[in-house]
Amino acid sequence: MAVGLKELPHLYAVNGMRLATACAGIKQAERDDVALIEICAGAKVAAVFTRNAFCAAPVTVAKRHLGRADPRYCVINSGNANAGTGALGIAAAEETCQAVAKIATCTPEQVLPFSTGVIGALLPTDRICAALPTAYDKLDANGWGAVAQAIMTTDTVPKGSSRRVEVHGRPVTITGIAKGAGMIRPDMATMLAYVGTDAALPSTLLQRALQQAVDVSFNRISVDGDTSTNDACVLVATGRAPLPGAPGIDSPDFVAFQTALVEVCQELAQAIVRDGEGATHFISVQVVGAAANEEAAQVAYAIAHSPLVKTAFFAGDPNWGRILAAVGRAGVVALELDRVSLFLDEVCIVRNGEPAAEYREQDGQEVMSRAEITVRVELGRGTAATTVWTCDLSYDYVRINAEYRT
Amino acid sequence: MAVGLKELPHLYAVNGMRLATACAGIKQAERDDVALIEICAGAKVAAVFTRNAFCAAPVTVAKRHLGRADPRYCVINSGNANAGTGALGIAAAEETCQAVAKIATCTPEQVLPFSTGVIGALLPTDRICAALPTAYDKLDANGWGAVAQAIMTTDTVPKGSSRRVEVHGRPVTITGIAKGAGMIRPDMATMLAYVGTDAALPSTLLQRALQQAVDVSFNRISVDGDTSTNDACVLVATGRAPLPGAPGIDSPDFVAFQTALVEVCQELAQAIVRDGEGATHFISVQVVGAAANEEAAQVAYAIAHSPLVKTAFFAGDPNWGRILAAVGRAGVVALELDRVSLFLDEVCIVRNGEPAAEYREQDGQEVMSRAEITVRVELGRGTAATTVWTCDLSYDYVRINAEYRT
Repeated sequence: MAVGLKELPHLYAVNGMRLATACAGIKQAERDDVALIEICAGAKVAAVFTRNAFCAAPVTVAKRHLGRADPRYCVINSGNANAGTGALGIAAAEETCQAVAKIATCTPEQVLPFSTGVIGALLPTDRICAALPTAYDKLDANGWGAVAQAIMTTDTVPKGSSRRVEVHGRPVTITGIAKGAGMIRPDMATMLAYVGTDAALPSTLLQRALQQAVDVSFNRISVDGDTSTNDACVLVATGRAPLPGAPGIDSPDFVAFQTALVEVCQELAQAIVRDGEGATHFISVQVVGAAANEEAAQVAYAIAHSPLVKTAFFAGDPNWGRILAAVGRAGVVALELDRVSLFLDEVCIVRNGEPAAEYREQDGQEVMSRAEITVRVELGRGTAATTVWTCDLSYDYVRINAEYRT
Repeated sequence: MAVGLKELPHLYAVNGMRLATACAGIKQAERDDVALIEICAGAKVAAVFTRNAFCAAPVTVAKRHLGRADPRYCVINSGNANAGTGALGIAAAEETCQAVAKIATCTPEQVLPFSTGVIGALLPTDRICAALPTAYDKLDANGWGAVAQAIMTTDTVPKGSSRRVEVHGRPVTITGIAKGAGMIRPDMATMLAYVGTDAALPSTLLQRALQQAVDVSFNRISVDGDTSTNDACVLVATGRAPLPGAPGIDSPDFVAFQTALVEVCQELAQAIVRDGEGATHFISVQVVGAAANEEAAQVAYAIAHSPLVKTAFFAGDPNWGRILAAVGRAGVVALELDRVSLFLDEVCIVRNGEPAAEYREQDGQEVMSRAEITVRVELGRGTAATTVWTCDLSYDYVRINAEYRT
């Protein structure tokens, strides 16, 4: 599995952040499943969360705390999502924050809680709180890889991305980690992702930078169309490597930073799809010539969510009729079929609504045998475009989700 | 497979309609794959078609013919959908109609063509036209069962439903057949369904009767969320058993007729789900207390389309967190969680947003072991309600769609 996914790359430390993990034995006895991220005083923190109305208790608590104080710690557990747990779940998330606050001598509002794992089971706070001192004692600037590992659930590999870019002649670091493999159709943010930078950015600009990056990365992937109750993406700017001056949204400095941030977020988002549950193919769905960005996304998601398209990719079958059918039901108003073209990688299959004269089944077959494939749809309606990344639907997706308790 | 599906029931003949099948060897050499339905002169015909923008050539042609003449024949083939075939596909559908018109001495506009099967392959019109005289010679009032069989693709059983009701002291017959097992999320109509009645109804009332029935039957099912390019549902009223007077939409006569029509359409629609590709469970998703019918449908479909919910049903796992997560992402504006309750059959799992105190895992487990299960969601927002029927997602769904060319 994990299509084309490399080893966890070298993750640069971010000046002003330390990380560590510990074992609370939440779901398995012998793996680290609790993580702590320390953020230096004075850092700015931006975050986006799931738009699922049934958001998990830690999402509710993290949003509340973010509005009240500058965060100093993120506490994360895997194995239990603390979702669908009602008032007791809120209390459990608060209790975890209080435990961190006590050890680290800060206020509970300065702690953001995150959970991922089984929905509907009560969080074993006693075991989590018992593991926290160990994590606190181990906090380390080089702990990113360990945390990437500890937050995994059905993930088969840890996911990280790191960049050093020069902004105005000074090096700036951006490092991120993420987890997620199923229940993936982020809406606002993905499962769990933590990105840190030593750049200095005012809060409003930081939130805008995160939103822009998320819109073209975590908000452009789908494994199964199911939006999680626990999605969250956090961006921390420690300010230890200040950008000269106060960068405006249009300044070259900010653009350089934003470009690197997008790269990190896209690499993390694509890693989630590459490690999609049961994935055997990594598929980029590119829609161009749309009347608006939302229309492009609508068509791309209709293709990316189609079980019939996904099983055809699993079979390696250039069954392009299913792709056309998905385009046709995407709900585009007044779609003109004779302007629609379809490509699998470099092979044109449909041109202006008619089967391409030069198309040969064996050419389609050859493309489908590749592990990474681009589906390109031209709508001929305008200049808007987008790309959504997805994977195929295999026996293993069914097996994993029939066996695993989300 | 085919959850709880009985043998094809006795299908009453409809005075004024004759049916027959023949073998054109479109996809398999030795099965009847062409069907002809004859409709008496003076009959009224209503129809609804797929809303997929990439509708198949026969859909385009059937719509055009319907606007020009009163239909006398339906010609149907399975094994080839004649979809995604461009201008050649339109010509092929017209050619088939011309062949029927020649044999039956009517105009080509009095023939409606229908196709179902592989998308993107050219229709072998020569073989279909060669088989038509055989079908024409065999036309028989008792041919419903044979046609139900001939129009099957991945269906494992033929599907039919028949009623005799008394309207104003006179017997009226309604008989219907349908096919479909995958690419099922009808929008306006299902795959292919043909319903005949000997009742006399004016055209406008007939179309309205069909639309009403379809809205609570074929438009309330989903196997995989994929809307086909070829969906069509035809309702023929031969007028051989005239209802006394001209029944208005509110007359008791019309209501009696409409009730029976809904029963026939729901039985056919549910049969499609029961025979859903790889289905091992038949699931009724009931949403009540919605602010509007569309909202109820939105929530019901979010549950019915969730691969995570569907794999949990396959596993027989009462993983209710996945159902809540689907409700939460359904896009209901200002959903109040503390008014939401969730039941699996008679077992309450969530009451007013909190886990039900009396819920025991073994009770949920027991419900999930049943072949037919009702998921009931109470939204606490109003009085609108709907039911959507779906099935689970199994290994066999993946196998069937990895092997089969839609």
